[in-house]
Amino acid sequence: MDERDARMALCCAVEPGNLAMTAAVAEHGASAVFAGLRRSASRSRWARRAQTLDLTLVQRSAERNRLRFLIPGDDGWPAALGDLATADAVQEMGGPPFGLWVKGDAVLAEASARGVAIVGSRAATPYGQSVASDLAAGLGGHGISVVSGGAYGIDAAAHSGALATEAPTVAVMAGGLDKPYPPGNATLLQRVAGQGLVISELPPGEHPTRARFLARNRLIAALCPATIIVEAAWRSGARNTVSWASACGRVVLAVPGPVHSATSTTPHRLIRDAEAVLCTGVADVLELVGPLGRQPPSRPDQHRRLDALSTDELAVYEAFPARGDLDAGEVALRAGLGLGRCLAILDRISESGLIESSGSGWRLTPRAVTPAGD
Amino acid sequence: MDERDARMALCCAVEPGNLAMTAAVAEHGASAVFAGLRRSASRSRWARRAQTLDLTLVQRSAERNRLRFLIPGDDGWPAALGDLATADAVQEMGGPPFGLWVKGDAVLAEASARGVAIVGSRAATPYGQSVASDLAAGLGGHGISVVSGGAYGIDAAAHSGALATEAPTVAVMAGGLDKPYPPGNATLLQRVAGQGLVISELPPGEHPTRARFLARNRLIAALCPATIIVEAAWRSGARNTVSWASACGRVVLAVPGPVHSATSTTPHRLIRDAEAVLCTGVADVLELVGPLGRQPPSRPDQHRRLDALSTDELAVYEAFPARGDLDAGEVALRAGLGLGRCLAILDRISESGLIESSGSGWRLTPRAVTPAGD
Repeated sequence: MDERDARMALCCAVEPGNLAMTAAVAEHGASAVFAGLRRSASRSRWARRAQTLDLTLVQRSAERNRLRFLIPGDDGWPAALGDLATADAVQEMGGPPFGLWVKGDAVLAEASARGVAIVGSRAATPYGQSVASDLAAGLGGHGISVVSGGAYGIDAAAHSGALATEAPTVAVMAGGLDKPYPPGNATLLQRVAGQGLVISELPPGEHPTRARFLARNRLIAALCPATIIVEAAWRSGARNTVSWASACGRVVLAVPGPVHSATSTTPHRLIRDAEAVLCTGVADVLELVGPLGRQPPSRPDQHRRLDALSTDELAVYEAFPARGDLDAGEVALRAGLGLGRCLAILDRISESGLIESSGSGWRLTPRAVTPAGD
Repeated sequence: MDERDARMALCCAVEPGNLAMTAAVAEHGASAVFAGLRRSASRSRWARRAQTLDLTLVQRSAERNRLRFLIPGDDGWPAALGDLATADAVQEMGGPPFGLWVKGDAVLAEASARGVAIVGSRAATPYGQSVASDLAAGLGGHGISVVSGGAYGIDAAAHSGALATEAPTVAVMAGGLDKPYPPGNATLLQRVAGQGLVISELPPGEHPTRARFLARNRLIAALCPATIIVEAAWRSGARNTVSWASACGRVVLAVPGPVHSATSTTPHRLIRDAEAVLCTGVADVLELVGPLGRQPPSRPDQHRRLDALSTDELAVYEAFPARGDLDAGEVALRAGLGLGRCLAILDRISESGLIESSGSGWRLTPRAVTPAGD
């Protein structure tokens, strides 16, 4: 079996972040290690999985789901992941992934090298979500990608904010890419794959587990030069990601909040203990991670435009799909407004550049924020 | 004129924080310096004031207002003010006060040595005021005095919080103690004098000026081992007090808040630039300045238990559904482990309370963390 197939097979047989197997692959190569597992008389978990693995099924499923499989050395493979080979273990895990399935057309190495991880609690407050979204949108405006975990709360807010810009955003999953997780973020993850990438070291068909979330976090942290924690309980996945970022020598930033807010306890503690630098906005990030992105913000802030809309205007705007035209009647129906009022609103918001007239109706402008959010 | 009267006279003739006059007094003593001013042919501001001063009027007014006058060496004089003799100048001011008028029965040296300064904006938000008040009340509960400036906003909130406890609180004024300033805080200042102290280096009859506020701030900062800034604009009196605290080598703490709040900009910037330590509550203060230690959290923490598990232990744990029993054979199969090893692990993690034996096998304990999630 060649190195590429062996790495894919190891992704299938071995739980991610396994230190011993990662070390063995670094020393002997994936082909030798996987062949060893296949031959092994041991009843170990990995050996048994390797012996029953049908790689063709995995490859077919990847094809069906339009996944590419990247291994070290491939164009687009992020060199930064190599730092995991020497980083301290966190909770007995570590090591670079054997390979990565990726969905989307962006170049992972570029997006992550010019990226910042934004992580935080699923049980985020509206405050935390608005900060995450604003940060992501602001960073995207500077050509900086946002890497996160695709979860509810802070992750979703960060991806959504990033999607309002033209920068690719990257969601790192803890299970196979055939099924979006969490299911409620399916649309969001589809949009992430459309504009950036959804990636995982687990093959299609595998579901997330607690251990896989922890292993996944090391990828989020290692991919980018900096990780920002927005809101999180002390014993949280986000805190774990911060540990990984520190282990990899990455910059860690933390967003403060009201002292009474339980979800700001972790950022506050990290700042106080000098494990993270206080971050109040994009300028603080740029100051620390330097000129990752060189493009100045070149267009008016879409979010600001959205914020300026009235409830009815927002309803009209949100009636539009990410792509495709609607005629005014359909917009009125979807927005729940009378046609006359709808037409007036269509005119008004087309002036702000959010929508435009097409031959056959109306559509979002190419650069508009796609309406569906988190 | 004796040293005490000469110091009182200098308080009347010389603007507070005057570096040259302070240095002269340190070298020649107050009597000699004041005699020199009286004799001086110069038409300097200080000389003219000294030559027209009627100290008896000042003493009578102090008596009427029940003020004591303290000088260095007196019982109750705070030795900490001596640090101002060597501290760097701030805005060309500095030096210890020649003396202090005090109103109230508390002992200034004791209150300030066991005290913390709480400062901030007059234009504080409800958030800032509630934090200041809670902090002051919490510190008072630990017998720690709160020193502040008696102004509206953060100062008033801090004094009020302190008044809810039995600890004395100290208001440092920028004008004479015959008239409360600001007038709207008259009742508050009366209560402060009743339970603690209101103090000033300016004689009765003098009103506050901008320069006197700046000079006053050096006393607030120098009196206590620590200064907490709650909310303030960057160019603010509170920021000036922080500069004094740093110049005197005092601990500076700053309270974070929402990143969108303009009044939290200064605390955030101080924290980010490592000029202040982040402070979310009384514990943070005690850890830095107080003799009291904190007890470790005593309740069992499920997350900590999960963190302590090895990879195989976690695999066993995660084999369980949220509800329902499994027999050991099934657990072994799901976890990919041999039965013997699985049984050993089941025993081990049941001891930590994560799983328990049921009649027919094993199950998660009711309070165990459900496995999925990050």
